[in-house]
Amino acid sequence: MLIHSASQLLTLSGGPQRGADLGRLGLIPDGAVLLREGRVAAVGSSVELRAAYPAEPTLDAAGHVVMPGLVDPHTHLVWAGDRAAEFELRLQGKTYMEIMAAGGGIVSTVRATREATVEELIAQARLRAQSMLRHGTTTAEAKTGYGLETQSELRQMEALLRLDEEGPLEIVPTFLGAHAVPAEYAGDPQGYTDMVCAEMLPALREWWNQNAGRRPLPFVDVFCERGAFDLAQSRAILQTAKDLGFPLKIHADEFDNLGGARLAAELGAASADHLVKTSAEDIAALGRSQTAAVALPCTPFGLGDPHYTPAKAILEAGGLLALASDLNPGTAWCESMQFVIALACRYLRLTPAQAIAAATINAAAAIGRAGQVGSLEPGKQADVLILSVSDYRHLGYRFGSNLVETVIKKGEVVT
Amino acid sequence: MLIHSASQLLTLSGGPQRGADLGRLGLIPDGAVLLREGRVAAVGSSVELRAAYPAEPTLDAAGHVVMPGLVDPHTHLVWAGDRAAEFELRLQGKTYMEIMAAGGGIVSTVRATREATVEELIAQARLRAQSMLRHGTTTAEAKTGYGLETQSELRQMEALLRLDEEGPLEIVPTFLGAHAVPAEYAGDPQGYTDMVCAEMLPALREWWNQNAGRRPLPFVDVFCERGAFDLAQSRAILQTAKDLGFPLKIHADEFDNLGGARLAAELGAASADHLVKTSAEDIAALGRSQTAAVALPCTPFGLGDPHYTPAKAILEAGGLLALASDLNPGTAWCESMQFVIALACRYLRLTPAQAIAAATINAAAAIGRAGQVGSLEPGKQADVLILSVSDYRHLGYRFGSNLVETVIKKGEVVT
Repeated sequence: MLIHSASQLLTLSGGPQRGADLGRLGLIPDGAVLLREGRVAAVGSSVELRAAYPAEPTLDAAGHVVMPGLVDPHTHLVWAGDRAAEFELRLQGKTYMEIMAAGGGIVSTVRATREATVEELIAQARLRAQSMLRHGTTTAEAKTGYGLETQSELRQMEALLRLDEEGPLEIVPTFLGAHAVPAEYAGDPQGYTDMVCAEMLPALREWWNQNAGRRPLPFVDVFCERGAFDLAQSRAILQTAKDLGFPLKIHADEFDNLGGARLAAELGAASADHLVKTSAEDIAALGRSQTAAVALPCTPFGLGDPHYTPAKAILEAGGLLALASDLNPGTAWCESMQFVIALACRYLRLTPAQAIAAATINAAAAIGRAGQVGSLEPGKQADVLILSVSDYRHLGYRFGSNLVETVIKKGEVVT
Repeated sequence: MLIHSASQLLTLSGGPQRGADLGRLGLIPDGAVLLREGRVAAVGSSVELRAAYPAEPTLDAAGHVVMPGLVDPHTHLVWAGDRAAEFELRLQGKTYMEIMAAGGGIVSTVRATREATVEELIAQARLRAQSMLRHGTTTAEAKTGYGLETQSELRQMEALLRLDEEGPLEIVPTFLGAHAVPAEYAGDPQGYTDMVCAEMLPALREWWNQNAGRRPLPFVDVFCERGAFDLAQSRAILQTAKDLGFPLKIHADEFDNLGGARLAAELGAASADHLVKTSAEDIAALGRSQTAAVALPCTPFGLGDPHYTPAKAILEAGGLLALASDLNPGTAWCESMQFVIALACRYLRLTPAQAIAAATINAAAAIGRAGQVGSLEPGKQADVLILSVSDYRHLGYRFGSNLVETVIKKGEVVT
């Protein structure tokens, strides 16, 4: 299929974009892209490609932006239940302790998720996956982390793999057994850390061999934050995971700077995520590393918190900046990377071009998929969006609606 | 048609909700609503209504919230062109003067709008009206104000009336000839004020008699702000409009407190809108008046400005608080009242129930339509939403997506 006459074809070609390089859209006016067998076969001007492929079935994109599918590199897609009542209690002025006493907080999601069957988990997550796809996300990372015991965590992982097989949203899985300290280990994060290292991660490795051997290993992630896992515990978990062969991610510096970002750089993690309270030294360490810096602006927005990731400082340090939704039931139930782009323009002061690159090719780099998705270049997956607008800058400028008209995943029109 | 088995039927019955009264949803669990000839004929429990109307065609809303259509009481729906390039320039650090020099700002919208035919204005606004409807807005106020000369303003008004006739979005028109001082009167707001009073408003009255005599007169609005019209000029325009029989509105205290809110209360305006910098005295004056206080949280959000309408103070003063989108090409291209609700929860600290009431029955009051729309009560228009969720609190809690599944306008399913 030849999609032609796009008012703007954004290729995002040339690989991940570090520091001041961020924002290269590879824009071709009156552009065209040839899709064959689920892959991009050629990109260029409409004149050029229509002459070269005269017999190809065509799709006229006149007046529309055509661009790669959005990549969401940080989501907690699979959970059971919701926290709508807790949201209301917070607005009524209830304290965190009162909400916990009323059965709220992450423990309520853990309870509901533990009680759910894998089919129930899939059914609830599928609605969110469909919404993500409608909003233009064609590949998403997704984490476990609401089980906090081995079998529940593995059930969440099974749900993720089955959702990925179902498609069309492509899911890159992450194991987040160390998302929080469960009630069984209250006051004993070290005890839980020891269990994660001694039992959970080896069990995951074993389970993977038996159930998903043909796939690359999932990421292992940890929540390095006061009230969750300190730096030494985070290091123990990530080092154990690394020794078992898993690629790494980390939740760092959302509320406090414990040194998680620097640890990520040191261990060669694919990404360090949140990065609100990251120190200048840690930003510099990230800038020198191959670790992507993933900003999650929906989380402060969701909390009504004015503190966002210092994106400009990350770019000045030469960092590889990516954007993600952080989709989760507590702080950010948001399925739209378009809205993430709108937030990034206003609160991270990115231009639309920078935010788009951070939500495509750089987001792909943050989940180790820059070779497959995130740009329209020959040989890459044919994950393509056709927008209802003729100028890419409407992404960011407009907010609260969905500018994606058509979603193509691996060459197939899916919405 | 009998819509039954709604997990929650929100009636919003009992009229507009002042002060601490805000947030009465009139919630009926397992609720039903009977629609006949475009009107609400009955509301009640599903058991009750299914027994009373056994032969009625049914629509099963199990697992869904059913509620009145959202009302957006402040939009600038009709304009030509866009300001996406200006949005990018702002993020690149360009100053307002540089943007003006590059042809940006409201003057660029005025230029494009003056050059557009009424058909072009309608075609561009129709896309926005359709998006508003998909997001659950069934009635919207909409303003002229990008013509700033008599014939262009009347052409915008013609576009509004034709869009309203087209439907299904119902449009309540407002004349905003005094939106800004046009280039022809640069530095002479008083000269333009005199022209508005002496020529424009009488011409509108005459035009209305000839072209829309069967309709109620439109609102007349003015932008009372430093750089636009001062308090005396605003008073002159509104008093002239009042003497001609027009109902009134005002843009007040967005950036500066000039006393516009108190003027609105004094003149009996239907609403005073923006109200970010309103003084305690002016809030008290609004609280004692029949003038609705309309908060527009998309505008500070769109600008990345942390200053929002002091909603709590307005409620404490007994005010009638409503929410609107302020849809416009400069600061807030947002077509979703659901997103307005999400902002109101986070930045105005309203609960979902309060925000929903402010976006339905109180929004209807702000445009003088509380007798027709904004609640599900016998005799009112059958403007009904069916949400994809079972708990109303998902409005506010979730953001960036569209939770409206079905929109019914005057008894007809329209999306």
